[in-house]
Amino acid sequence: MGVDVGGTKILAIAVDEEGTEIARVRRPTGWGPDAVGDEIARAVAELESVLGVVLGPPVGIGIPGQIVPDTGVVEHAVNLGIERFGLADAVAARIGRRPVVDNDVRAAALGAAALLPDLFSLAYLNLGTGIAAAVVDETGLRRGPRGAAGEIGHLSVDPAGPPCRCGQRGCIESLAGGGSVAERWGMPAELPVLDVFDAADAGIGAAARIRADVVRGVAAAVQLLILSADVDAVVLGGGVAALGDRLAVPVRERLRATATGSPFLRSLRLEERVTAVPGRAPVGALGAALLARTAHPAAPPTRLAPLANPSSTRESIGHS
Amino acid sequence: MGVDVGGTKILAIAVDEEGTEIARVRRPTGWGPDAVGDEIARAVAELESVLGVVLGPPVGIGIPGQIVPDTGVVEHAVNLGIERFGLADAVAARIGRRPVVDNDVRAAALGAAALLPDLFSLAYLNLGTGIAAAVVDETGLRRGPRGAAGEIGHLSVDPAGPPCRCGQRGCIESLAGGGSVAERWGMPAELPVLDVFDAADAGIGAAARIRADVVRGVAAAVQLLILSADVDAVVLGGGVAALGDRLAVPVRERLRATATGSPFLRSLRLEERVTAVPGRAPVGALGAALLARTAHPAAPPTRLAPLANPSSTRESIGHS
Repeated sequence: MGVDVGGTKILAIAVDEEGTEIARVRRPTGWGPDAVGDEIARAVAELESVLGVVLGPPVGIGIPGQIVPDTGVVEHAVNLGIERFGLADAVAARIGRRPVVDNDVRAAALGAAALLPDLFSLAYLNLGTGIAAAVVDETGLRRGPRGAAGEIGHLSVDPAGPPCRCGQRGCIESLAGGGSVAERWGMPAELPVLDVFDAADAGIGAAARIRADVVRGVAAAVQLLILSADVDAVVLGGGVAALGDRLAVPVRERLRATATGSPFLRSLRLEERVTAVPGRAPVGALGAALLARTAHPAAPPTRLAPLANPSSTRESIGHS
Repeated sequence: MGVDVGGTKILAIAVDEEGTEIARVRRPTGWGPDAVGDEIARAVAELESVLGVVLGPPVGIGIPGQIVPDTGVVEHAVNLGIERFGLADAVAARIGRRPVVDNDVRAAALGAAALLPDLFSLAYLNLGTGIAAAVVDETGLRRGPRGAAGEIGHLSVDPAGPPCRCGQRGCIESLAGGGSVAERWGMPAELPVLDVFDAADAGIGAAARIRADVVRGVAAAVQLLILSADVDAVVLGGGVAALGDRLAVPVRERLRATATGSPFLRSLRLEERVTAVPGRAPVGALGAALLARTAHPAAPPTRLAPLANPSSTRESIGHS
């Protein structure tokens, strides 16, 4: 079972041995340690009810914030009202078994890797309210900074760019983060960046400027990840990535154009190395479910390609 | 024995079990595959002569370029006139044993880690003609992009910055790379960046502008490495880093100032996480010597801290 804890909603799924989703449940996230712990436990209980079991399979939780390694303690989950909380212990007390807890972007990276088995390695670039990335290679999830995902959002790529709450200008997050887009657009919406792209298509200048910043911010993040890490591709995820090709196509064009003057950069074929997860796959919850399969959370997860070839590993992968 | 192949000079050293240098030899690098192979072999032969041995200990070679994993083949060593060359084979034929070959920045990272055992992990930032980085953590040298070091030099952090040969403007290399500094300064010198800093101290405006770009380029590289990788500190190396504190102090101040508006960035204490290798230690050659100690080059090197505590590992570390 995998629980993906978002800023406002929880998605919990149960998957079978092949990693195929067999049930899902949504709940509000709640605010503050007790409420969040309760809602997670209730999501698990609802899934068990749907599955018709009393004590369900192992549970994995992906949650925004920093996870203190090997403790199940989450810190600095600011948007959930959590400064420091023993989440694994609290949920274990409610559901009768100890969940594995990891950062949500890291869990999503694992889920993306399971759905893209042709890639030997990938960086999952989460384009949410903020921007962060996590890397999966053949050793599994690559260790990240102090139990968090790579916080590349606060790297400035333009000193003359839009101001960021972090005090810098033109950082990747102020260019392309959902929170910054919403603030610059100014009009409430379910997904402000969608309104921005629609208005830009309709010729609204202010929207076109924001869109251009989103495209160059995402392209900078992709180039950064490919140049500094060892990944076959960057996978776009998160709310802003819900734009699909409307985002991916201009990002690829930007990467191609940026490389024009350099045989070295052209040789990297950056524009061929940006992709998205298939459809509207719940990569966060799927990845959290996969986390639960590792016997020892600190060990590298098993290579995810077998999920596409279940006959070779059926006996070794249990229900989760 | 470790051989550090630079753009113009080779430095080869022999070290004892504790990693202490016992002999060193310098030779010109030569140009083109045959000349470079010859000069490396001659350097090894000279060291054997100094040591009074006929067949010396295992040899490691650090060379600029991309190394095809597990083959000893070096590619794209443009400044050495090498497009693709079976270096390990060529040197083996001359010295009677097969050397381990790796990228020079990666070797230097290993050497730096040996000399800074208090760090659990580090990114070695090579500020040479170009800019690249390699990471060492408790698993050893972290895998890098396709047998090279992290080519972070071509990430643009200022669209209005100085033009780079790669076609972009304001990339880290055009701000802080030794080649760019030399080109912008325009006057020949052994180490142009030293002349730039001296002239800036003397009040020359053009020099002050180049110096400011070097400082902000290095600071951006440090911030990028710390935010995207999991390292305790960034270690400055290479020609530009020979400036020592004249570079490190303003870089730390820049990092501190950049973080002023963000509790998150301040919490990272970036300015406390930049350091340099002790003195004028030959980290490239030392690291190359350490490479030679791994029985299987693809395996992670042993944790280097023991080099500072030889009594615990004397019997397991041979001469190299």
